[in-house]
Amino acid sequence: MSTYIFGHTTPDSDSIVGAISLSYLKNQLGEECIPSRQGEINPETAFILEKFGFEKPMLKRNYAGEKVYLIDFMESSQSPSDIEEATILGIVDHHKLGDLKTDSPLEMWVRPVGCSNTIVKQMFDYYGVEIPKELAGMMMCAILSDTVIFKSPTCTKEDTKACKELAKIAQIEEPKELGMEMFIVKSDVLTDTKRDLVLRDFKDFNMGGVKVGVGQLEVVDLSVFDNMKEELFEAMNKIKEEENRDSVLLLLTDIMQEGSQLLVLSDDNSKIESAFNVKLENNQVWLPKVMSRKKQIIPFLERQF
Amino acid sequence: MSTYIFGHTTPDSDSIVGAISLSYLKNQLGEECIPSRQGEINPETAFILEKFGFEKPMLKRNYAGEKVYLIDFMESSQSPSDIEEATILGIVDHHKLGDLKTDSPLEMWVRPVGCSNTIVKQMFDYYGVEIPKELAGMMMCAILSDTVIFKSPTCTKEDTKACKELAKIAQIEEPKELGMEMFIVKSDVLTDTKRDLVLRDFKDFNMGGVKVGVGQLEVVDLSVFDNMKEELFEAMNKIKEEENRDSVLLLLTDIMQEGSQLLVLSDDNSKIESAFNVKLENNQVWLPKVMSRKKQIIPFLERQF
Repeated sequence: MSTYIFGHTTPDSDSIVGAISLSYLKNQLGEECIPSRQGEINPETAFILEKFGFEKPMLKRNYAGEKVYLIDFMESSQSPSDIEEATILGIVDHHKLGDLKTDSPLEMWVRPVGCSNTIVKQMFDYYGVEIPKELAGMMMCAILSDTVIFKSPTCTKEDTKACKELAKIAQIEEPKELGMEMFIVKSDVLTDTKRDLVLRDFKDFNMGGVKVGVGQLEVVDLSVFDNMKEELFEAMNKIKEEENRDSVLLLLTDIMQEGSQLLVLSDDNSKIESAFNVKLENNQVWLPKVMSRKKQIIPFLERQF
Repeated sequence: MSTYIFGHTTPDSDSIVGAISLSYLKNQLGEECIPSRQGEINPETAFILEKFGFEKPMLKRNYAGEKVYLIDFMESSQSPSDIEEATILGIVDHHKLGDLKTDSPLEMWVRPVGCSNTIVKQMFDYYGVEIPKELAGMMMCAILSDTVIFKSPTCTKEDTKACKELAKIAQIEEPKELGMEMFIVKSDVLTDTKRDLVLRDFKDFNMGGVKVGVGQLEVVDLSVFDNMKEELFEAMNKIKEEENRDSVLLLLTDIMQEGSQLLVLSDDNSKIESAFNVKLENNQVWLPKVMSRKKQIIPFLERQF
């Protein structure tokens, strides 16, 4: 029996870096942990890992009989299918309280901040453990990614403080510049299949008994999607049907314009319209200032479902 | 809209002291919070409050429309009936992950330690806030109570460390002596009605769809119960029937002998027997070394139900 640390089904930079940073901290504290991941890494995360010289965590989708720490999620819909047969020792997360349960007391570091790695940074400080330079650089990038370079409404003072301190350790003088570089990598939406694009940062939620999937793509210029909307809808439709989802939404977020184009395929479009008090045109709508799935999309959907 | 901090339905010393200590900390951090309680306080808690000169937190059973922090629980069965209409801002607890959910990200300080006030002490340290002498004395008593003066298997090094540091602030030289004094107060089982005794420290659990209630009485000498078993069973039977519970269990814990007499009323005694690998006689059994409901009773019941 080993102890694994991993993030949600479709990993993003925060959950991959978090698995590595939390494992490092736990190992320093004398608790042997192995970072892992439930799925393929995205181009942004590959860029970060390469930049700071880290390997991808091992790919592992089954955890029956193992001890685990979860990072960056606490929803069964984002868990391995055999999570009930694993022992959850702890959770580090910055989302709402989901539907996971445990048999025994556990450790939970959950804060309403913009990024899980901000919490991991606070844990390093709490235990007085030094963060190696390259790891600090990765954690800083995770914060820049999750907070959309501090522009997301989820970003808190604690995130900017942690990011600043990590940049200092990593000896990076212009974090925002590196952030932009990262988002330009992230904006590469031309090489992947449309299906892979929809699923790149995709999360399922159980809403009042039905499954609602919400993907998000953050780019520096929304016009890259101009000629691929139809194909994106085709991919979304297939994803909707194959797991009997009630709705599949895709947020195309323009980080410079600071807003999102919402693409909708739903059994009941009026529910989505009511949730955001908008009118869909060709199953789409522009939502100004909306950049956060967690804060500006999910709570409003949950109230409708 | 105010912010309240409170513990489980039937409050014990940890949840009452925790409501007061966490409110004090939050107020010092600039977040106005009011300590409250869902039910009547027990004799031990009354002793602690009086000793250190604190008032009982306000009695409040409804929280619709309010903001709340929960201390010492995260189960809907131990929550106010209108908890879904309240906004849970945070949870400080040392139990298993229960079935509560939230719409938005929250703050959670959850650790597998023996007492919620140990976690509150760590929060004071984290934020660098000084603990007033009298408050430290109360928090120390909460730890002595929850860990049965360090004898419970739930007691960790973090609890003994926090207790020692609090004793120093409170200028109490012999914490264990005060602990025994407290447990002698707690051992007073002659003045209450039998119903009140069963309910004094009583928690309901949702186990596989049925309701299981487990009470616990900790005394310095088990013989006080010798002549009241029959009446206790009568009270348990009424409590079992009036809310259609599948089982009602009562743990009579002898803190000097370090074990518990388990009293059982269940729709299926064999489930309880299998859970602990014992044979009931007259619906009772002596469980040596068993002192913790949380660690030595609930997980084994949950595996059966």
